Amino acid sequence: MLILVSYDVSTETSAGRRRLRRVAKVCLNYGQRVQKSVFECQVNLAQMEMLKNELLDEINEAEDCLRLYRIIEPLEKNLMEFGKFKAVDFESTLIV
Amino acid sequence: MLILVSYDVSTETSAGRRRLRRVAKVCLNYGQRVQKSVFECQVNLAQMEMLKNELLDEINEAEDCLRLYRIIEPLEKNLMEFGKFKAVDFESTLIV
Repeated sequence: MLILVSYDVSTETSAGRRRLRRVAKVCLNYGQRVQKSVFECQVNLAQMEMLKNELLDEINEAEDCLRLYRIIEPLEKNLMEFGKFKAVDFESTLIV
Repeated sequence: MLILVSYDVSTETSAGRRRLRRVAKVCLNYGQRVQKSVFECQVNLAQMEMLKNELLDEINEAEDCLRLYRIIEPLEKNLMEFGKFKAVDFESTLIV
């Protein structure tokens, strides 16, 4: 299944940027980055649990917000893309 | 249905920031902002078409990427939220 990970964190602090880097690292083991803090992860049910637990280990629940959305198949019906997709190396702009 | 709108745009230019403001304005007619450029919109099928067309009128397809995800009910199964949700007025930090 496709899991969309949306991670709302302040990147104005180095701690926030560090958490975003670590969240990105977790997500990139399962999928791709579609925005600075939005990721699409292709997982099965067991991996879904692992992904969730790994993410919960990285975030600061008192300050950040993590939202996981399950996108049901067929993706051609439930995922619409417009414009130009750019796989950008967001890390390079985040390292302080 | 719940539509998740993810809008990848460079906010390093005033034109990009302007497009994000206009996209936000469209989305906020249908729902709430959950990140700087991620929105959750509650719509029916007709509104979904309107939302899509209004968004396509605002974005620059040569430069930006817009992704719409349909989140199927039940939301308690397909949307998981962790941490602290902050409804932030992102506009105030975007106006130049």
